Amino acid sequence: MAPRNTTVNISLMGLGTVGGGVAAALMGNADAIKRKTGRTVRLKQALVRDVSRPRDPSLPAGLLTTNPEDILSDPDVDIVVEMMGGDSPAGSYLERAIAAGKHVVTANKEVMSRRGPSLLALAQEKRVNLLFEASAGGGIPIVGCLMSQLLANDIRSIRSIINGTTNYILTRMARQQTPFADALAEAQARGYAESDPTNDIEGIDAAYKLSVLGSLAFHRPIPHDSIYTEGISRLAPEDFRYAAELGYAIKSLAIAVAEDDGAVRARVHPALVPEDHLLAKVDGVYNAVEVTGDLCGQIILHGQGAGREATTSAVMGDVLNIVRGLANSEGPPPLPDTPSVASNGGPLAPVHPIDELSSAYYMRLTCADQAGVLAQIAQILGDGNISIATVIQKDTDPGSGTAQLVITTYPSREADVQTALRAVGELSVVVSVNNLIRIEE
Amino acid sequence: MAPRNTTVNISLMGLGTVGGGVAAALMGNADAIKRKTGRTVRLKQALVRDVSRPRDPSLPAGLLTTNPEDILSDPDVDIVVEMMGGDSPAGSYLERAIAAGKHVVTANKEVMSRRGPSLLALAQEKRVNLLFEASAGGGIPIVGCLMSQLLANDIRSIRSIINGTTNYILTRMARQQTPFADALAEAQARGYAESDPTNDIEGIDAAYKLSVLGSLAFHRPIPHDSIYTEGISRLAPEDFRYAAELGYAIKSLAIAVAEDDGAVRARVHPALVPEDHLLAKVDGVYNAVEVTGDLCGQIILHGQGAGREATTSAVMGDVLNIVRGLANSEGPPPLPDTPSVASNGGPLAPVHPIDELSSAYYMRLTCADQAGVLAQIAQILGDGNISIATVIQKDTDPGSGTAQLVITTYPSREADVQTALRAVGELSVVVSVNNLIRIEE
Repeated sequence: MAPRNTTVNISLMGLGTVGGGVAAALMGNADAIKRKTGRTVRLKQALVRDVSRPRDPSLPAGLLTTNPEDILSDPDVDIVVEMMGGDSPAGSYLERAIAAGKHVVTANKEVMSRRGPSLLALAQEKRVNLLFEASAGGGIPIVGCLMSQLLANDIRSIRSIINGTTNYILTRMARQQTPFADALAEAQARGYAESDPTNDIEGIDAAYKLSVLGSLAFHRPIPHDSIYTEGISRLAPEDFRYAAELGYAIKSLAIAVAEDDGAVRARVHPALVPEDHLLAKVDGVYNAVEVTGDLCGQIILHGQGAGREATTSAVMGDVLNIVRGLANSEGPPPLPDTPSVASNGGPLAPVHPIDELSSAYYMRLTCADQAGVLAQIAQILGDGNISIATVIQKDTDPGSGTAQLVITTYPSREADVQTALRAVGELSVVVSVNNLIRIEE
Repeated sequence: MAPRNTTVNISLMGLGTVGGGVAAALMGNADAIKRKTGRTVRLKQALVRDVSRPRDPSLPAGLLTTNPEDILSDPDVDIVVEMMGGDSPAGSYLERAIAAGKHVVTANKEVMSRRGPSLLALAQEKRVNLLFEASAGGGIPIVGCLMSQLLANDIRSIRSIINGTTNYILTRMARQQTPFADALAEAQARGYAESDPTNDIEGIDAAYKLSVLGSLAFHRPIPHDSIYTEGISRLAPEDFRYAAELGYAIKSLAIAVAEDDGAVRARVHPALVPEDHLLAKVDGVYNAVEVTGDLCGQIILHGQGAGREATTSAVMGDVLNIVRGLANSEGPPPLPDTPSVASNGGPLAPVHPIDELSSAYYMRLTCADQAGVLAQIAQILGDGNISIATVIQKDTDPGSGTAQLVITTYPSREADVQTALRAVGELSVVVSVNNLIRIEE
């Protein structure tokens, strides 16, 4: 490792939106970085797919390479910053960089979710830093808080809004009563959603992030594919209207809870949130994470979950902390932020299936507008041990002879609710079961 | 320093509410601490005033001492945790502990505000950690965020609610229209306010905390006595009622802003906050800190600003991070969280006087209920370059022939507003100038 007072060489893998922001920060803020860390940094090289593409900022041609070996095999590179995204080839590049004794910063939720434990173990063995603040929550400093400031806590739960695309769409649907398809198209037009929006709207992106946060919080790996996910495409403007009447907003939440039996319950799905809760007030592309610990109680962090500048804040924060650590130690570099337990690759957290969830529910049905309908539905719910909390009949349509029935329940077992709702759907007086949404108090 | 794999000895100075929480965490969570840090910790001794006083948790008599030398001169003590509060003698104890090569954790806002730069410089010289997460914001991890995760940012401003006592009182006044004196008495009865509440209600406590946060954010010491403070005792229930009609809550804010000319503007005072802003929704004893940086944009951290458990979360987080650092390095201990610039004891931040502030204002006057009054007042304000935004006449009292006049202004210069308001107060038709409150958009 470079001795004190020499320049720290940093190479980037990926020079897209975030990579460009990091390159600009490294090149434009040299004085501030020197002041904050005690060391001078230099952008040594950046891995790109196409060296001829115009970029902001534009880099001298000599700094661009299409060959990862130029970075991974360069003994002068102290820190590799990976901003390519996706598991392959980024994951193996990170592994090779760490194996070569380089410090690593990554913004890659998928790699940290799939390979975090093994990469952290390798980093600990090689006595290098692996930091990943930008992998969940964008500019919100939640990763570092879980690893460092909140370390003394026994974390009980995380409830979060960690996908800006879905939150933008839900905010539009709630405020302007925009149908889902229109809100999605608008998000795509504004660049908030990709042309294939599946990862965002089906909760896959949030599951990767929740996997990263939950693993840090509970000190055990939580594989992303053990997380129950449910998308937002079934939500309709009337759900937001009825929810508001009941005193709730609808948000897509990523939730991980440590159960008393030692298992973890992790899930991503739309939920009704009381409108006076701070999570209900997270609007547009903003994100928020609520952490509940035995000592700290309930903490909420709110900020920008994506975007060039906010993500650059997280990546550069990691970079500067590594550079400062290099400046402060002549011996092996410190590992201030490596969670020792997660990196031990401890046993996977057992994850309870969604069937066993106990939750209150909101259900919306389209029924025949005639006497006795509610009695039949209530009978089925009662037989299934599901207690009704409220019933609202809405939007009677004389043309079709139907009405909307909105029912909320007291906490019930998910499997019981699903079974009962299938039976309800088979009633001749029920035209359709439109939606079932969990209620988070 | 103790080599790897040996027990880390921790001694406490102060064993009150927070000290008791830290002692309980050290004694009760040994397994979890070992798992999280890789090292075993031992509570070696605790400095108290009276060894015979009953305590929760109760400590073996041998662990208690009334003599600070027992801790400061003990070569086996690795970490000193100071929770006595106040500048003297805590400040000199901390200095001696650092000089003796011990790592130090403190919850002391006054010491960190008054002596932070010199103590941090000494810690850097001695290559030990000085961590102080609990000195501002209680259980909210804002100190570490400013030092670590947000390090890459050029921080532009901090706006915060960092005194739970005043926020509890203001919440009572707003919700139940309780007069100030009654809300204060209730806060005292519940243990949220001390018998002499001056430090809290006059903004002195918040100024110490803002001094700590501002110094970290702007990388220059901001002395607490350079911070303008204004208490909450002039607020009346009708101010909350009128503010609500205008769409605002009233909160006591601690604000530090980096001005374009390099100066800092730091102040603690009641302010009207738009009711849809998250700061307006911080209720009771909760605290919140909003940080605006060039990269991260606006981040808000919300949580418990005081109390035994929340403060223990912050203190023990610092302790565990030091212990983990010791476990990860055989050489000199790392200094991951020591802000190099603040510890250099750089030049004081120039602080603009409040006179030069540009702000919108809310003013409440008691006037004669007769024609032409507003014209006279508007004339004086207009002559003072103050543009009126709204006027509401309220609570006409036929008995005294008076009415309440509530005026809000567009942004104006504080000195101009103060001068004009003195002239308004001298009008024969003005019975009293009841309040002048700044508006924060």
